[in-house]
Amino acid sequence: MRVVGIDLGSRRSGYGVVERQGQAIFCISWGEIKLSSNKKKLSQRLCSFYDHLEAIIKQYLPQEVVIEDLYVARNVKTAFVLGHLKGVAMLLAEKMSLPVFTYSPSEIKKAVVGYGRADKEQVRAMVQRLLQLPEMPGEHAADALAAALCHLHTLRL
Amino acid sequence: MRVVGIDLGSRRSGYGVVERQGQAIFCISWGEIKLSSNKKKLSQRLCSFYDHLEAIIKQYLPQEVVIEDLYVARNVKTAFVLGHLKGVAMLLAEKMSLPVFTYSPSEIKKAVVGYGRADKEQVRAMVQRLLQLPEMPGEHAADALAAALCHLHTLRL
Repeated sequence: MRVVGIDLGSRRSGYGVVERQGQAIFCISWGEIKLSSNKKKLSQRLCSFYDHLEAIIKQYLPQEVVIEDLYVARNVKTAFVLGHLKGVAMLLAEKMSLPVFTYSPSEIKKAVVGYGRADKEQVRAMVQRLLQLPEMPGEHAADALAAALCHLHTLRL
Repeated sequence: MRVVGIDLGSRRSGYGVVERQGQAIFCISWGEIKLSSNKKKLSQRLCSFYDHLEAIIKQYLPQEVVIEDLYVARNVKTAFVLGHLKGVAMLLAEKMSLPVFTYSPSEIKKAVVGYGRADKEQVRAMVQRLLQLPEMPGEHAADALAAALCHLHTLRL
């Protein structure tokens, strides 16, 4: 079972592709999708996000897509941009016939750190350890990998 | 100049295609896109919305897309669904190389009724009158036609 986790951010989003073989879990790839500069129109930025994510899915061929649930952002404008990105990501998954699963931020933290209110550094460190990564992933990639791990963990239970 | 206006709603959205020839303005088509039932997954509903809107644009070939700005909904869940729909609509416009314009609800009302806080019945009645429609359009279609009229009005100024 191979899944791609996605962490949405208004400036950059993270992705992480993780595979489970029996009891073992491997990291296939991770990284960030930078949203093109604010100077571009929002529609262009959404399209570039869609195209980038599509290329990642075509390259790594995950069977399922995992997205962190949106929480209410402090800033309404940011909340709407996150909503647009999530809509676009879900549309892409559907167009590629991949099922979408969502988990709350606290479910994801609990799955990798055992505590729903863990801080970002803890998540990064545990993701590195669980997946035996050569370096600590960036914040967004770590959240994306954590979402993928949370899903694989939930599937196993 | 032919434009399509879109009014986003969490249960049903409206569309309205309007054309300006010199000083005259004609309504080409209007209607509603029902979001498939709540029993379907959100990703499937977004995909069906995208496909439906794509079919309308391919049929009527507007040159520009007009969308009402989102305001903060009372219900956070509804706000996110509207955000997803708007993201999907903007992505579609970009994929079809159509520029997207957005106006606030009060700008749109002002353009058709002359008053930014007009009620829905007033908007429906004025849209019917301005476009000489044989019947009063439904609420969502009227809002979509009003958005298109607002854009054509703004262009003329």
